[in-house]
Amino acid sequence: MKFVIIGGDAAGMSAASRAKRIVPEMEVIVLEKSEDVSYSACGMPYNIADADRDIDDLVVRTASVFRNKQGIDLFTGCCAEAIDVKNGAVTGTIDNRESFRFFYDRLLIATGGQPIIPDLPGFDHPGVVALKSLADGRRIKNYIKDNDVKKAVIIGMGYVGLEMAEALRARSIEVEMVKPGPDLLPWMPRELAAEVRRELDANQARLHLGCEIKGIDKTADHLHIVCNDRILAADMVLVAIGIEPNSQLAADAGIETGVGSAIAVNHKLQTSNEAVYAAGDCADAYHVVTGQKTWIPLALRANRAGWAVADNVCGKETSLEGVAGTAVFKVFDLEVARTGLSLEESRRYGFEPVDVTINSRSRAHAHPGAQPIWVNLIGDRRTGRLLGTQMVGREGVAHRINAAAVALQAQMSVKAFSETDLAYAPPFGPVWDPLLTAANQLLKKMT
Amino acid sequence: MKFVIIGGDAAGMSAASRAKRIVPEMEVIVLEKSEDVSYSACGMPYNIADADRDIDDLVVRTASVFRNKQGIDLFTGCCAEAIDVKNGAVTGTIDNRESFRFFYDRLLIATGGQPIIPDLPGFDHPGVVALKSLADGRRIKNYIKDNDVKKAVIIGMGYVGLEMAEALRARSIEVEMVKPGPDLLPWMPRELAAEVRRELDANQARLHLGCEIKGIDKTADHLHIVCNDRILAADMVLVAIGIEPNSQLAADAGIETGVGSAIAVNHKLQTSNEAVYAAGDCADAYHVVTGQKTWIPLALRANRAGWAVADNVCGKETSLEGVAGTAVFKVFDLEVARTGLSLEESRRYGFEPVDVTINSRSRAHAHPGAQPIWVNLIGDRRTGRLLGTQMVGREGVAHRINAAAVALQAQMSVKAFSETDLAYAPPFGPVWDPLLTAANQLLKKMT
Repeated sequence: MKFVIIGGDAAGMSAASRAKRIVPEMEVIVLEKSEDVSYSACGMPYNIADADRDIDDLVVRTASVFRNKQGIDLFTGCCAEAIDVKNGAVTGTIDNRESFRFFYDRLLIATGGQPIIPDLPGFDHPGVVALKSLADGRRIKNYIKDNDVKKAVIIGMGYVGLEMAEALRARSIEVEMVKPGPDLLPWMPRELAAEVRRELDANQARLHLGCEIKGIDKTADHLHIVCNDRILAADMVLVAIGIEPNSQLAADAGIETGVGSAIAVNHKLQTSNEAVYAAGDCADAYHVVTGQKTWIPLALRANRAGWAVADNVCGKETSLEGVAGTAVFKVFDLEVARTGLSLEESRRYGFEPVDVTINSRSRAHAHPGAQPIWVNLIGDRRTGRLLGTQMVGREGVAHRINAAAVALQAQMSVKAFSETDLAYAPPFGPVWDPLLTAANQLLKKMT
Repeated sequence: MKFVIIGGDAAGMSAASRAKRIVPEMEVIVLEKSEDVSYSACGMPYNIADADRDIDDLVVRTASVFRNKQGIDLFTGCCAEAIDVKNGAVTGTIDNRESFRFFYDRLLIATGGQPIIPDLPGFDHPGVVALKSLADGRRIKNYIKDNDVKKAVIIGMGYVGLEMAEALRARSIEVEMVKPGPDLLPWMPRELAAEVRRELDANQARLHLGCEIKGIDKTADHLHIVCNDRILAADMVLVAIGIEPNSQLAADAGIETGVGSAIAVNHKLQTSNEAVYAAGDCADAYHVVTGQKTWIPLALRANRAGWAVADNVCGKETSLEGVAGTAVFKVFDLEVARTGLSLEESRRYGFEPVDVTINSRSRAHAHPGAQPIWVNLIGDRRTGRLLGTQMVGREGVAHRINAAAVALQAQMSVKAFSETDLAYAPPFGPVWDPLLTAANQLLKKMT
């Protein structure tokens, strides 16, 4: 059995390692186009925040460990250019010189995603950066140092943009953020988004909402981000408007793509070609709330899908039920978390959503240091099911969201969720956990 | 409709308030033997820790608010002495003088629990204290101040004992803890209990395990706790060996008691007499894992059961599925949490338990400040079900336990739990949440 994997990041290396663990004699070949494998991509903003830390601290396992200790045939600098599904082969180029052809019995496409860069003038300047790969992280750190960056503009206000705002402010870099849309975190209820806004304001990250970007001009001193109604000057521009799946290679081979142009996979992670699997940011997934396909590129599901592919390739049949879209991120001292559907998504998927937003506290009555916690909880009036939740607060948000994530996986009703036995002690919350208070309030609105 | 409630603490006042909210014209009578109603009992150790804080800060709502704003007929200093179920009446004494008789259509017994005090010589000294009521808390604070307590012995090492050890050390009082059993936290796996032990050692709380207590001697200077093999001197002795349900009043009226002598109630909180309900520390409950009766006196379930009684009394039929026994407590800087069954309990209830203990981290690889997190996870080999989990760590434990608590309520299998979509960001945990790592390891052992 020859198992070829295109892409040596979270999904690819998880699959490779697990396959070798289950079937040590299996020939496992990984083709990675960069020089970096197995690193904590999500850790990059926190590394960039600290000028003194080496970006390579983020490497979890080096290529040589995979090669020598795990017996994986790992080729870096190896760019896959075509998949010949008829003959079961991958062709491409190594180090931009030699061409290769690897035959496979089973193939995993784990090509990940890439940052979306607008097709506008000036975005090809070296001071215009994006953050996805370790090479990107390295480039940003070097650029800040070499050019003594004092002022940055971040295009986009998603979680990468927000985490990078914190990272750059930690290095005393002036930060302005700009986006065309009118709302910060439009999937979030206004009360919660307002808390995030306050935190950004308090940390001098200046926001420009509703600004159409026309291009970037370069002068001797600065980059100028030209918007419809203003011009923002910067030493560096971070483009963080989102990522798109690297699915072209698969599409070119006649493999089906679906939601958000991601590679369509079934519960076993098989593509439309049953010998070919896809996992990670390049692949879609089922959503446990809607039962329908979704594309939510996050780290845990990439690792998990990599494992599931390895299990299936090794004959240990495995299905993944799906994702809940659980995510948490830090915005300066604020924890922001969500799981399941937003109100708008609930409507779009045909639910009859009812939602409630409450303000509770992170510690018990009379316990010192309590901080407000905002919870938005959404239920379906027709079925009574829990559909999603979002939370914002200075403490007690990041792990609290997981209770709701498990409830979504179990397809719990709001009523059943409201009866769960959550932990209580005064330093950690009120007797009625904020999630339970929200569930109790929501129940009243639903009936 | 006349609704009489014996006991004005968590369960009783929750029921009274909710009943008046649902049916404002209902006559709701609360008979409370002390002068205190509606206070944060669990907050007492944290209040005692601070000499400058008034114990009355813990009062959430005063008697006059219940009387004047909510229209509840609340009688304090009012001791119920007998229930006449045949005639539907409660008799007793007000302020140790006048006797009373209240007739009821529906009765709620919410008499709570009381600390177990061993029947040994010397335990009646005023320097021998226990902590359950606000009056107890007041007495302890005053005793510490008036007697300039420099050294305390705590008998018992349950969560009240451990929280009080922290509270007393915060006031620079020397603390020794003593118990007859050989193990600190015997329901806990050794690796986790060892972490708690280390934390107690680091904070100079001296432990004496396996010491049979014979009595307390009083000299001019000190109390002497006489054990089989040693004598411990102290200015104050805190007895924290557990509580027992106040169920005698019910038992005397011919109402059935069950597990741990608690008043037996059905899912609607009705006792063996259908006009009489019981809720809070005096009543038992169903366990969501075993489906059998259990007695776990905790605050959330008392509040929740109070509400459910009010709903039922007001004609809004409500059943409570049961408790998972989720609990969290702080031992100095350590968070300790559990939900569901321990290994020993799993065996006792006829499961075929398999458990795993793992050591993970509170933050991602390479993220500064990560602390170890210990997780013990238990599954049933026969059914594949998740049975329980315990956790210890310096951060990220208190709310993390709730994910498992929800899984228990949903009767999830270990496999399904291992596939849940938990939140990830580097400041808050590894990609694979410690709970998921434990579930993955446990699955391997179970199959």
